[in-house]
Amino acid sequence: MKIVLAYSGGLDTSVILRWLKENYQAEIIAFCADIGQEDELDGLEAKALRTGASKCYIDDLQEEFARNFIFPMFQAGAIYEGQYFLGTSIARPLIAQRMVEIARLEKADAIAHGATGKGNDQVRFELAAAALAPELRVIAPWREERFRKEFPGRAEMMAFSKANKIPVEASAKKPYSMDRNLLHISYESGVLEDPWFDASSKEMRDMYKLSAAPEDAPNEPEYVELEFEQGDCVAVSGKPLSPLGAMKTLNKLGGKHGIGRVDIVENRFVGMKGRGVYETPGGAILHFAHRQMETLTMDREVMHLRDSLIPK
Amino acid sequence: MKIVLAYSGGLDTSVILRWLKENYQAEIIAFCADIGQEDELDGLEAKALRTGASKCYIDDLQEEFARNFIFPMFQAGAIYEGQYFLGTSIARPLIAQRMVEIARLEKADAIAHGATGKGNDQVRFELAAAALAPELRVIAPWREERFRKEFPGRAEMMAFSKANKIPVEASAKKPYSMDRNLLHISYESGVLEDPWFDASSKEMRDMYKLSAAPEDAPNEPEYVELEFEQGDCVAVSGKPLSPLGAMKTLNKLGGKHGIGRVDIVENRFVGMKGRGVYETPGGAILHFAHRQMETLTMDREVMHLRDSLIPK
Amino acid sequence: MKIVLAYSGGLDTSVILRWLKENYQAEIIAFCADIGQEDELDGLEAKALRTGASKCYIDDLQEEFARNFIFPMFQAGAIYEGQYFLGTSIARPLIAQRMVEIARLEKADAIAHGATGKGNDQVRFELAAAALAPELRVIAPWREERFRKEFPGRAEMMAFSKANKIPVEASAKKPYSMDRNLLHISYESGVLEDPWFDASSKEMRDMYKLSAAPEDAPNEPEYVELEFEQGDCVAVSGKPLSPLGAMKTLNKLGGKHGIGRVDIVENRFVGMKGRGVYETPGGAILHFAHRQMETLTMDREVMHLRDSLIPK
Amino acid sequence: MKIVLAYSGGLDTSVILRWLKENYQAEIIAFCADIGQEDELDGLEAKALRTGASKCYIDDLQEEFARNFIFPMFQAGAIYEGQYFLGTSIARPLIAQRMVEIARLEKADAIAHGATGKGNDQVRFELAAAALAPELRVIAPWREERFRKEFPGRAEMMAFSKANKIPVEASAKKPYSMDRNLLHISYESGVLEDPWFDASSKEMRDMYKLSAAPEDAPNEPEYVELEFEQGDCVAVSGKPLSPLGAMKTLNKLGGKHGIGRVDIVENRFVGMKGRGVYETPGGAILHFAHRQMETLTMDREVMHLRDSLIPK
Repeated sequence: MKIVLAYSGGLDTSVILRWLKENYQAEIIAFCADIGQEDELDGLEAKALRTGASKCYIDDLQEEFARNFIFPMFQAGAIYEGQYFLGTSIARPLIAQRMVEIARLEKADAIAHGATGKGNDQVRFELAAAALAPELRVIAPWREERFRKEFPGRAEMMAFSKANKIPVEASAKKPYSMDRNLLHISYESGVLEDPWFDASSKEMRDMYKLSAAPEDAPNEPEYVELEFEQGDCVAVSGKPLSPLGAMKTLNKLGGKHGIGRVDIVENRFVGMKGRGVYETPGGAILHFAHRQMETLTMDREVMHLRDSLIPK
Repeated sequence: MKIVLAYSGGLDTSVILRWLKENYQAEIIAFCADIGQEDELDGLEAKALRTGASKCYIDDLQEEFARNFIFPMFQAGAIYEGQYFLGTSIARPLIAQRMVEIARLEKADAIAHGATGKGNDQVRFELAAAALAPELRVIAPWREERFRKEFPGRAEMMAFSKANKIPVEASAKKPYSMDRNLLHISYESGVLEDPWFDASSKEMRDMYKLSAAPEDAPNEPEYVELEFEQGDCVAVSGKPLSPLGAMKTLNKLGGKHGIGRVDIVENRFVGMKGRGVYETPGGAILHFAHRQMETLTMDREVMHLRDSLIPK
Repeated sequence: MKIVLAYSGGLDTSVILRWLKENYQAEIIAFCADIGQEDELDGLEAKALRTGASKCYIDDLQEEFARNFIFPMFQAGAIYEGQYFLGTSIARPLIAQRMVEIARLEKADAIAHGATGKGNDQVRFELAAAALAPELRVIAPWREERFRKEFPGRAEMMAFSKANKIPVEASAKKPYSMDRNLLHISYESGVLEDPWFDASSKEMRDMYKLSAAPEDAPNEPEYVELEFEQGDCVAVSGKPLSPLGAMKTLNKLGGKHGIGRVDIVENRFVGMKGRGVYETPGGAILHFAHRQMETLTMDREVMHLRDSLIPK
Repeated sequence: MKIVLAYSGGLDTSVILRWLKENYQAEIIAFCADIGQEDELDGLEAKALRTGASKCYIDDLQEEFARNFIFPMFQAGAIYEGQYFLGTSIARPLIAQRMVEIARLEKADAIAHGATGKGNDQVRFELAAAALAPELRVIAPWREERFRKEFPGRAEMMAFSKANKIPVEASAKKPYSMDRNLLHISYESGVLEDPWFDASSKEMRDMYKLSAAPEDAPNEPEYVELEFEQGDCVAVSGKPLSPLGAMKTLNKLGGKHGIGRVDIVENRFVGMKGRGVYETPGGAILHFAHRQMETLTMDREVMHLRDSLIPK
């Protein structure tokens, strides 16, 4: 049996890699997509091989992410509950798509992921896989009872890693979780779960990675001109840029001026409400500029119909 | 015949007052609603009477405007094309409603207004009147050919005023038009019609009356807490306030911090696009706070359905 | 403790009546709404008292059902998935509303119903109760484990009835279930669950109670004229009628001409698809006539907006 | 100059052909699309040439009409105001598309049509042309003042024809107008404009061409089975059929059983309401069957979202 595993090099997916290999008696192909998470990808291949993978794909999908996922989403004006730029959601179908390609290339029998049974990611990931490759089996260890029995907590995973000589680094746990890609960083859970917890206080200032606090941003305004072709931004202040280049430029510019911070409570797919803090500096500029451009170019009926579909 | 006229004391409605009196051989009752326009209302009654009115109503409708028009609109989350807070539109039905009341009280035969045949105001005003009092005749001099022939321009109106001893003040004409009420000030036409004209430049700084430019706003953030009951803001930072009080407090606070400026091109009812610059400092805070409150209290399906109706 | 129970006199609610009395040591007030189900209501009070109720309310709610529930629904044009007239759904809030009234009148502590944990009725019933009387406790024996353990099947209920001298009649079970009220009869489950099962065959002809088969209907057309006031039908072919009278007259007329049969597969609230066969003769005429009336009287924008909300 | 003219051989387009030739000093290429109107197309080419055309295209577009226009429309579930199958509207873009192709093939400078300035057809036609070939000039003689002055009525057109030896047949004018294609026949204007005029009376029985009156239809039901692939009907009662074949078969079957007559008042694009009587026998069967098929195959959320878009 051959399984392609979505692998990050962290504790969870490292344990899952070895566990799948043993329990499914399978050859494991590790896959890690670079979508701008800026994590340390150096040494990841060696690590995967030492953990037990037969092969490791590390693919830079940033340009494709910007061009085929982020930009079309901004054309649609998609924004969740009036405030969230969907930074995490939009990345999942791309990862699933590339995994399916690798699975077919490698003639694998299944794909596997480390998403838990409680979140949205399993749904996004598996719907994408079902649409693209209904014939592929999906393995989700966190939904298997034997896996959950073997690993009731972090301690058991650390022990398993030690016993199996799996290289993992102990990192100080932050009081919230974080997900980063080219479009945004999201922060949630932990201390952030209390909606009255002030995520803009001086004590929390270090949490933010992409943007200055508005009160620390420069007092002098900066003018920026975005050029659009067929609805996509093709140049910033006169400089032609690829979608990836535009995102990077706008992230830097927006971050400097404290643009794109969002701190909300939102309705999750499973019915709960949850609090999320987001930094989306480039996305916020792009969304705003795109709408201004549309006010000049878009027919009224089309705009109102499109806008009525955004909340759905 | 008895006519109730929407009267501001300006050149147009002064000329119309006298013209109606002569051409319809009618008794004219002047009506001016105070909805927070902060114009000089002192001496207005005397002016109306000298111009030829038999009576002049000057009604302070600010509290009713806030309570029964602005607040319900914010409950609905109404915002036009994602950006405009509808400050002008929401005032018209209130003015029409009060005029209808006066017309009935005075047993008048008709109501009259000075809106032109090209704009949205005639539509808003006359739809409201038609809904509330279909039996009342509406007179719109600007849509009568004989009126337009008599007054092809401002000069003819000035001459008519002089000849008829109508008290009017010559004011230096600004290169844009302005409409103010409790919710906002809007600026449009004139120099603003060119979408590339920069309305945020240093030269235009004096145009704004309600808000500091963001770059001139204080660097220190200010925390403000809004208390909601049944969807309406009932207290600001612990101080209980009526709807009018809340609007005034938030206008001041938002204005100080440069909040609520919007500069857009929008689709007009008649099919044209037009550019508008708006200052809505209190409205912007209220809208944002209301939505945050809803994220905690509103059912997901209700929110998404409500949001899908906002663009319509 | 005092409980108001939705009681029909059938096996389930008879058993529940006695079971609640014993297990909750409660006084039970039986309630049966007449909404046009045409079941035998004679002798129901005596039966309820013999089964153990301290009191029995039998209320004729037909006129209210027609006036305040069916007619407003037709004004809204509500129709599910383009085909189903919502005959069962619309009755539940009325029953819940009357139960809440009785519970308050009788100072009861709780209301109880015999809906199972799998269907839509528990949802409709309990949402209505929660909206109208959040302080009232709702008891649903079928969702209590001890009740399900005691009564795994019909045999145990029959035995319990016999042992407790509860008067129940054994009726030959039909190969489908049926729900009737003033607006419709619905048939579902059993043989109907197979979508390829032909519910219009000669063998099934006896299932239908309200309408002739179209092929058995008269060959001569009949003209009928509905008069509407404020959107409600107030007369049929010149004869003034109350809402109940209109429904009865149209049911008879439509039934004679084979109008209003619908045989569909629909999406249920819980996510399953299910097949339903419906007879809604009067409703079908009323819906059609109402829409024709609207084509003459309703503004285009209002109609299109209203229609876009019907599927939600 | 070279002009492609939408030509039917009737009085209007015959006069227009010659008038364009003279007034624009242009070469005229006549074009007539066969979309199932079942008019006499024999001899049309000779007629066009005698009237002054340099060339005449007569294209059988029936199969394309069924495959690329009617079938996708039924997939979308498109139906206007809940009742009208859009039979006329859906044909216009196809005609415009083919005219644009011919204009490019012939290197023509313009296309011309005989639609008047009051109806919907000019809008449909010219929007399609503008989308497909913005560089092509569109000539609409009925919107040119000199044309309307020359031909204030039918008499002047008859005289012009006689004087110019244009072959036209005088036909007895019916008290309503009629438009026929593969999908439907529509009847409107004339006697039909009075909504109280009974279009189903015995006297009007001859108006209908495609369907028996329901009371004249057979008393015996007929079973028909439609097979769908990818949302399109590919076989009727076991017989594989092209889209055109399916439409023809279903038209015949539905017509025999009196299916698909619709008699409504609808909102026109220009703001008026108008009455239309339609025969759409095959379309009605196809629409119904398609929806039943969807009840089994379509996801609930997709169906409800799609349905909410139909009224727009």
